[in-house]
Amino acid sequence: MAAKANAVVAQSGGPTAVINSSACGVIQEAVKSGRIGKIFGATNGILGILKEELFDITAEKPETVEALKRTPAAATGSCRYKLKSLDQNRADYERILDVFRAHDIHYFFYCGGNDSMDTADKVNKLAAETGYELVCMGVPKTIDNDLACTDHCPGYGSVAKYVATSAMNAGKDTEALYTTDTCTILEVMGRNAGWIVAATGLARREPQDAPHLIYLPESAFTFEQFILDVKEVLKEFGRVFIAVGEGLKDKDGKYITADAGQFGKDSFGHAQLGGVAEVLKAVIEKEVGIKARFNKLGTNQRSAMHFASLTDVNEAYMVGQAAVQAALSGENGKMVTLVRESNSPYKCSTGLALLSDVANGESKVPRKYINAKGNGVTQAMLDYVRPLVQGQAPITIGSDGLPVYMRFERKHVTKKLPKYM
Amino acid sequence: MAAKANAVVAQSGGPTAVINSSACGVIQEAVKSGRIGKIFGATNGILGILKEELFDITAEKPETVEALKRTPAAATGSCRYKLKSLDQNRADYERILDVFRAHDIHYFFYCGGNDSMDTADKVNKLAAETGYELVCMGVPKTIDNDLACTDHCPGYGSVAKYVATSAMNAGKDTEALYTTDTCTILEVMGRNAGWIVAATGLARREPQDAPHLIYLPESAFTFEQFILDVKEVLKEFGRVFIAVGEGLKDKDGKYITADAGQFGKDSFGHAQLGGVAEVLKAVIEKEVGIKARFNKLGTNQRSAMHFASLTDVNEAYMVGQAAVQAALSGENGKMVTLVRESNSPYKCSTGLALLSDVANGESKVPRKYINAKGNGVTQAMLDYVRPLVQGQAPITIGSDGLPVYMRFERKHVTKKLPKYM
Repeated sequence: MAAKANAVVAQSGGPTAVINSSACGVIQEAVKSGRIGKIFGATNGILGILKEELFDITAEKPETVEALKRTPAAATGSCRYKLKSLDQNRADYERILDVFRAHDIHYFFYCGGNDSMDTADKVNKLAAETGYELVCMGVPKTIDNDLACTDHCPGYGSVAKYVATSAMNAGKDTEALYTTDTCTILEVMGRNAGWIVAATGLARREPQDAPHLIYLPESAFTFEQFILDVKEVLKEFGRVFIAVGEGLKDKDGKYITADAGQFGKDSFGHAQLGGVAEVLKAVIEKEVGIKARFNKLGTNQRSAMHFASLTDVNEAYMVGQAAVQAALSGENGKMVTLVRESNSPYKCSTGLALLSDVANGESKVPRKYINAKGNGVTQAMLDYVRPLVQGQAPITIGSDGLPVYMRFERKHVTKKLPKYM
Repeated sequence: MAAKANAVVAQSGGPTAVINSSACGVIQEAVKSGRIGKIFGATNGILGILKEELFDITAEKPETVEALKRTPAAATGSCRYKLKSLDQNRADYERILDVFRAHDIHYFFYCGGNDSMDTADKVNKLAAETGYELVCMGVPKTIDNDLACTDHCPGYGSVAKYVATSAMNAGKDTEALYTTDTCTILEVMGRNAGWIVAATGLARREPQDAPHLIYLPESAFTFEQFILDVKEVLKEFGRVFIAVGEGLKDKDGKYITADAGQFGKDSFGHAQLGGVAEVLKAVIEKEVGIKARFNKLGTNQRSAMHFASLTDVNEAYMVGQAAVQAALSGENGKMVTLVRESNSPYKCSTGLALLSDVANGESKVPRKYINAKGNGVTQAMLDYVRPLVQGQAPITIGSDGLPVYMRFERKHVTKKLPKYM
């Protein structure tokens, strides 16, 4: 490898409040090392590499790079493009190596989830097979917190802080107006894992605090038990605040929104449209006879930089730095992990895991973190998540009173290869 | 009136991030004056008065009262109970005066919107008619910003700040992931007035910034123009971020969700369920052929104390103080207003308006604040709202990293009257 080979940093999948902090960690550590040439950003993740849409981050202003720490979403652009297997689509992987070769790129830092780790792993294997010198390092990112091999994922602490605070805020609203707005449903993300909705449990410091009921995709959901749960809470507190993950499933593992049975039909027998919150709202209004309303935070939960966790921002930066340090010390084909050394006081360091181990694993909320009835979380869950939401990440506020976020200028490189088909 | 007559403070309607600041202003100013006896809180607004559910705020810890400034929603409890006219339900108004008489209450401070001002006005008139000494003062509150006689309403600045920041955050998300998540719809509150959705315009510092399209209830909405708007933005930026008020109406003033015509039916011809965002999502997916997702902030927008405007919190406190000062200086039957003395530098003082004038008025977004196409806001709108979002209101963060809010102990008075029927 040339003494000063170039690097590419790419971001993939659903953005988070802190994935840019990780990119910042990669960029600043690479620059500091003095051992890496140019650092390219790939516009829209692996798509940008395939299309040879690369821009020179080392030509951006240092203050723009620094402001990555205070900007949500994915500043290089992200994508949801999933490459097929090497056998099925070797051409794509070869194209990636062609692009790397054309721009003297020998370091590939990929921030993403398990699909991205799978992609990075396959690119790496083809490079080894074909004798192209490449170091591939994975940088973990996902609000879903479902990556294997790591204690938790950068992005999770901030979404946990935001959804817990949102439950606290909207819970106060329900408490104030319970005589008419008796039931509030807060729908949060998490199609397969319930880590995000579990974090709303932090808001409930006292029994009467919201959320009174928490439902995770890991617990088989039944409408019958749900109605009983709601009635019981109503009896005790005169109001009910419910937090739900978007991916609730029945005992057969089917999403309840796909076939909600008798409860999923409107009065004409038509299937209810919409997400989990809409279905549950309809069930409550029909079966319990109280008004229900729902808040669906959507992409606002994963981009809430204005209230991000400082712990999360710092750890996101740390995994970016660690990826570069590992790459320069001879590691390859690994993802940086977070290792919780102690919980009280909280201490966290980084480790490494094989990309293939991360690609093939999934971390769900363990049974011991969910209460016996499947409608709440345990103290162990709260102890797990609490350290991750600590601290207020600094943001820049403009003269207009609102946050100021950066945007790369993106001076794209001159393309050297035929157009990607 | 006795030298130290008692006062009651009540909160009504949809909570805000700062209605408690107004209550705090009333309470602390009343205590400071030394001219008011006990200050009662009415549990759930006028309902609490009717039911004789009053608690002694002067018996609460001073730090609990102080923490009102940093707690969202309505700490005394709120309600949506609308009293009929004096002619139709004189008994209710007489009951209110009976409760006041039973507890030596001669000051009534009512924090709410125009319905509440109407109630306070009628109570006041009956008191005058029957010779009961009473001073009724209105304290303005509404996120909707639709009260007459005042430049703006406490509660609006904080929701404006939150929805603008939410548009900025989710806008960054759409920008990052536009290759798959091409369209995001942000639905905010505002059934009749578009002040809240108009405030999202603050997020758009550059043309490519979100939101690209803003629709207010004040502009007649047509699906045909909407589809053209979306296609035009898509062509220019490759993505589209849309902010909508929940109460969009067609040219006949009908809510588009009530009868969305050909666009409001699913493929079976059934009427679409759900709110504005769901209808627009369906239209975009069908007519433009891109994926659309929506975020519905719901009650989270009106309870977002964690990112409230300091200007708003301070002004909310100021109107509470001013209500007491006016009451003690001989004013009666009036609501405190906010008067914008200058915009640059921003300077705001308080004034007074007749309760009946506020009760019978409504402030909508004027035409000059909406762009010619009816799909965005003008510089004049931004100049109006910008001062109101300035500054970060302090909150208390607990050792668990999350906001700490107060709750009254609510030691209720012994009831002296027969039960309210």
